[in-house]
Amino acid sequence: MNGTETPDVVVVGSIAFDSIETPAGKRPKLMGGSASYTATACALLARTGLVGVVGGDFPEAYLDVFRGAGVDLAGLERVADGKTFHWDGTYDADMNNRTTNCTELNVFADFDPVLPEAYRKSPCLCLGNIAPALQAKVLDQMEAPRFTLLDTMNLWIDQTRDDLMKVIPRVDMLIINEHETRELTGKDSLLRGARDILAMGPRYALVKKGEHGAFLMGRDFYAAIPAWPLERLADPTGAGDTFSAGIVGTVAAAGNLDAATLKQALVNATCLASFTCEAFGIERLKDVTKADLAAREAAFRAILP
Amino acid sequence: MNGTETPDVVVVGSIAFDSIETPAGKRPKLMGGSASYTATACALLARTGLVGVVGGDFPEAYLDVFRGAGVDLAGLERVADGKTFHWDGTYDADMNNRTTNCTELNVFADFDPVLPEAYRKSPCLCLGNIAPALQAKVLDQMEAPRFTLLDTMNLWIDQTRDDLMKVIPRVDMLIINEHETRELTGKDSLLRGARDILAMGPRYALVKKGEHGAFLMGRDFYAAIPAWPLERLADPTGAGDTFSAGIVGTVAAAGNLDAATLKQALVNATCLASFTCEAFGIERLKDVTKADLAAREAAFRAILP
Repeated sequence: MNGTETPDVVVVGSIAFDSIETPAGKRPKLMGGSASYTATACALLARTGLVGVVGGDFPEAYLDVFRGAGVDLAGLERVADGKTFHWDGTYDADMNNRTTNCTELNVFADFDPVLPEAYRKSPCLCLGNIAPALQAKVLDQMEAPRFTLLDTMNLWIDQTRDDLMKVIPRVDMLIINEHETRELTGKDSLLRGARDILAMGPRYALVKKGEHGAFLMGRDFYAAIPAWPLERLADPTGAGDTFSAGIVGTVAAAGNLDAATLKQALVNATCLASFTCEAFGIERLKDVTKADLAAREAAFRAILP
Repeated sequence: MNGTETPDVVVVGSIAFDSIETPAGKRPKLMGGSASYTATACALLARTGLVGVVGGDFPEAYLDVFRGAGVDLAGLERVADGKTFHWDGTYDADMNNRTTNCTELNVFADFDPVLPEAYRKSPCLCLGNIAPALQAKVLDQMEAPRFTLLDTMNLWIDQTRDDLMKVIPRVDMLIINEHETRELTGKDSLLRGARDILAMGPRYALVKKGEHGAFLMGRDFYAAIPAWPLERLADPTGAGDTFSAGIVGTVAAAGNLDAATLKQALVNATCLASFTCEAFGIERLKDVTKADLAAREAAFRAILP
């Protein structure tokens, strides 16, 4: 792809330096950000275009990861005299919780996403975890996407709930973790929380539960999937973003939202996310091949009843 | 069966009056106890004999539930001048935690299980949640069971850990919930906790995670299963005991521990436990037919990927 073509999937989100400490180790300034994980993984399944912003300090080697994965970069804005968004976080012993040590927005503070003309006709859009007002701006630029996936986080639920509540009704699927589901809906029961999300407008609510897997609820649809058993978890950063890639990439490749497509999407999402967790940052994910994914899928299906 | 026959499965555990309050309501002195749930459900899958004790106050109507399910009662001790074990508990809003208001052991305080001669040759034994010293006494009486399933609870892990640690190596499978796994092994990670349990001796560790399903780990085996999505939960009491029934009943009926048998056991366990949660006590479970179970299994398989 050269930027004049319409990708199967447009991925919007953050591109960042991540400084991460987990019980497995500590790494400074890894390639990170929601869009980095999603685009890199999604490109295994469908032609993927990236929309985001980096500073002049973003290394060519990191851009080469996108290029190596086949991600189209026509929508990537580079601010030569700016610095790339930086996140620094520490995970606790069981890696279910993390503390943000610092967040430097840098070029991301003024990010105003403008989609290349060719991207606007894309059939699928993945709105990664960024401010809901920015997500809305991207949605405004799309002509008639057939499938839109929206991610969010507790920060936006807390601080920009009104903006978020305006975006949620406009998308086909909200992807959200268990804590965020409780925070957004006020329901202890995840199933009731998911029902509340459907009442907000989306056709599907996809609730991610980490080591407990995930479930996907629609008005007349329900599917549940366990997680891949990861006995040695290095770094869970980006697992959720990679999960999103499996969903949107599978839907884009199939061109429909049939039950079989949605179930395959959950399997691909689970398998792709498992690779991300095996190493720090994008280290393992960037080298995953279609053959690796197929092998992981076969191994995963073997643990299902 | 008339008590001179050897059942496919011997179920040992408590038989009780349960006074239960959940957000769905309050019921006094229901038929309860670990063995009641396990035996009633297990009898759907295999010929089941019950070993336990009740007082003279235990109603004929409750005994008729066992009889109606086809449970053999040759191992049921009735203490005419004694009172039946009574448990009174209250569940919190999300029904993930419960408070014990009172426990009256009554005839259970002096329970000394003696197996009918014919039961000792049974190929399968389910050691429901009672004191590990009693579980050991039952194991001592069995001739050569081919499959033994052991349940326990936090009380025994706390108060009689030495006894418990003597029984665990003697069984084929330990069934345990996520909180108990952490308490028994000291591991945050359930997968690592399950590995520790295998190192204690059993061939399999079955970790129950409530709404998040369960996983079964062996030395060279792993399977994971999501839960049946219960949007209206009436009372979770006995769900774990019913889950045990699905495991031991399926293994007994198949006569082997092949991977396919173990996976089918997880499906039957999940489906049977889902019925238990739909109503208070044993109300729904006691009326479940093979056709009901088959229908629930078909519906459950339809939500899997």
